[in-house]
Amino acid sequence: MPREISSERLRDRFDRFNEIGATDRGGVNRPSLSDANRRARDTLVEWFEEAGLTVTVDEVGNIFGRRDGTNDDLAPVLVGSHVDSQYNGGRYDGVIGVLGALEGIETLNDAGVETERPIEVVSWSNEEGVRFQPDMLGSGVFAGKFETAFAYGLEDKEGDTFGEELERIGYKGEAPCEPRDLHSYFELHVEQGPTLADAGLSVGVVEGVYGFIWFDAAFTGSADHAGPTPMHLRHDALVATSDIIEVVRRIAGTEGEDLVGTVGSLDVSPNAINVIPERVDFTVDFRSSDDATVDRAAERVREEIDHAAAREGVAGEYEQIMRIDSQTFDPDCVETVAAAADALDAEYTRLVSGAGHDASYLNGVCPTAMVFAPSVGGVSHTEDEFTEWDDVVTGTNVLFNAVLEQANEAPGADSGSES
Amino acid sequence: MPREISSERLRDRFDRFNEIGATDRGGVNRPSLSDANRRARDTLVEWFEEAGLTVTVDEVGNIFGRRDGTNDDLAPVLVGSHVDSQYNGGRYDGVIGVLGALEGIETLNDAGVETERPIEVVSWSNEEGVRFQPDMLGSGVFAGKFETAFAYGLEDKEGDTFGEELERIGYKGEAPCEPRDLHSYFELHVEQGPTLADAGLSVGVVEGVYGFIWFDAAFTGSADHAGPTPMHLRHDALVATSDIIEVVRRIAGTEGEDLVGTVGSLDVSPNAINVIPERVDFTVDFRSSDDATVDRAAERVREEIDHAAAREGVAGEYEQIMRIDSQTFDPDCVETVAAAADALDAEYTRLVSGAGHDASYLNGVCPTAMVFAPSVGGVSHTEDEFTEWDDVVTGTNVLFNAVLEQANEAPGADSGSES
Repeated sequence: MPREISSERLRDRFDRFNEIGATDRGGVNRPSLSDANRRARDTLVEWFEEAGLTVTVDEVGNIFGRRDGTNDDLAPVLVGSHVDSQYNGGRYDGVIGVLGALEGIETLNDAGVETERPIEVVSWSNEEGVRFQPDMLGSGVFAGKFETAFAYGLEDKEGDTFGEELERIGYKGEAPCEPRDLHSYFELHVEQGPTLADAGLSVGVVEGVYGFIWFDAAFTGSADHAGPTPMHLRHDALVATSDIIEVVRRIAGTEGEDLVGTVGSLDVSPNAINVIPERVDFTVDFRSSDDATVDRAAERVREEIDHAAAREGVAGEYEQIMRIDSQTFDPDCVETVAAAADALDAEYTRLVSGAGHDASYLNGVCPTAMVFAPSVGGVSHTEDEFTEWDDVVTGTNVLFNAVLEQANEAPGADSGSES
Repeated sequence: MPREISSERLRDRFDRFNEIGATDRGGVNRPSLSDANRRARDTLVEWFEEAGLTVTVDEVGNIFGRRDGTNDDLAPVLVGSHVDSQYNGGRYDGVIGVLGALEGIETLNDAGVETERPIEVVSWSNEEGVRFQPDMLGSGVFAGKFETAFAYGLEDKEGDTFGEELERIGYKGEAPCEPRDLHSYFELHVEQGPTLADAGLSVGVVEGVYGFIWFDAAFTGSADHAGPTPMHLRHDALVATSDIIEVVRRIAGTEGEDLVGTVGSLDVSPNAINVIPERVDFTVDFRSSDDATVDRAAERVREEIDHAAAREGVAGEYEQIMRIDSQTFDPDCVETVAAAADALDAEYTRLVSGAGHDASYLNGVCPTAMVFAPSVGGVSHTEDEFTEWDDVVTGTNVLFNAVLEQANEAPGADSGSES
């Protein structure tokens, strides 16, 4: 029989937590290392300690809360997500994964249940990447993808650095941030896409994460007066860019079944009604479960940037700023999640995540899997983000039982990292 | 025999004037009602007074300097341009028209020449429209196109109003700003297009100004996550906008020989690499010597906005913010300019201006004409704007002789407004 968490306690904490940085339109505004993010972290640390967890903050601000196992020589099961938000983002994104993990600990405490392995709850630093890029920074440093010094040097738009701001809010910890022995990692998160909600399902058993590529691109032409400059003498950076926006849309429909492509950010200079655009800086994002498809799409856009530049008589440039291979989660961990969903009679499907998560990096450190809760309308990264509470509870129960199962798994019976 | 102005004196003043708000890259930064614009105005007033002109500042900050005629009952000849600049704009735009007019006065003073009619030099307020829209504001109020209260209420991006800022820099004058009896208006300006420079000509005799239309447009879709949102569920405001950028380019090539069309300003929200654009605000500018062509182009874009909105499943909107009919300048004034160019053996062509000018509004008040100096490479509104000094001198001489001719024209021999 599966154990079940307390819906009331989780709801109470969820509501109180989301008073921090609450917006008028029902969302939260807690971007990384903001004052609201500090208050959210303070509240988490307080609740971790109340639950008897031993709190450690590492040098990039990841917060760990450890519950000892009966055999503390065994590698712990790690479970969590993040509590930073988009600017005016939603209440569920990240939050349910951290508070859900904590709720599992409380449930074990209430029942007086001990586990063989330690369980650690984690809140990763700077997952959203809206203030400091790249996103998933804390888990990326933890997984050895970035150096700590690189993280400290990142600047926001005001020129404040990640290191200074981390120190300012009191979360530059002393524990090293580096890969260490973990038995496994589990994360509950909202889907941020429409699959589960459209199908009326409560749970997604996540088998992996799309690979993706990001690049910055730009065209530079001539900023002439929009009146007296004849069409044939123009070198309009925005006209060239519009070709690429169309191409990104078209490639996404032709190069691969699950390929998605987006031009999300675009800045025009000088951006005046009567001046031909001299320069446009824009971004391209491609994702697919198939890495070769992502690479093919990126290569085609690079070619099209050259073609558009030639047609319009402007200079084109592009720089790859991120490339993460698709992730396939550990089959044993994935089956543990599916078994927990089965035991709870939850209606679920298996799917691959289009969004990146801290679990993407953790998958390189230890066996990993994720649980998805539905996003109504597929909406996320806005104040309108919503998940039915019953689905939050079901997802939390699946997470809890999967973690409990793994935390009692004997050494040697898994693909974990104990020597 | 035509009279000639002093190249040295004009050059000296041109260089000293452009030290005000000078930029590192050789341009000037004197946007309307900035501190640099105030210093430029102060310098003008000082030089006007040194030249014996009677200075009047009107309620929107237009600065007039009057030189009496032998018959002060006759309507004056008005001559001038503007001294506000684009952000990081060029040294010639507007400046040569005001300093050139003043240089004509100095030349008359040196030669002890009196004119029948008064001559007034004018520097129009807020011609560029980069800080306070609409542009050509001072001449527009003077021509009765806008109310003074409308001008005072205009806000810049910081929320400061035109009225407050005008008062702050000390140029909210007491003279009413309204149409009054003028014999004629002449303006020397850089072409801001490539026609003269490409043909190797020194002077343009301007026969009129293109009509133009401006509108603000926007698409509003859904700001979903760029990863997990399948292509067929997207409502991407930027994809819809790219259709319109292409359409504006295409219409300009098909609807009329001299039609030009530009999307110059475009702002994306939320403008993040991994979020599908929810809203795009953009502008459209169409110009032609033929008003029906302008209207046809605007109508087609409005239809295309509806089509693009339907294709992408977004909401489209548009608002016309400016429509100025094409202007045909007074034939007598135009011939006076052409005759002055002939007398000076200047190589010139007749042309229609693609850019709007204060002269466009003055043309509704009194007989009007313009003189163009070449813009090297057709470049304007940037720090790279450049005109060969010899061409500035030739243009100033044409302006001066045209004004001198008209200032001695007897009452009744023209289409002026004396009763």
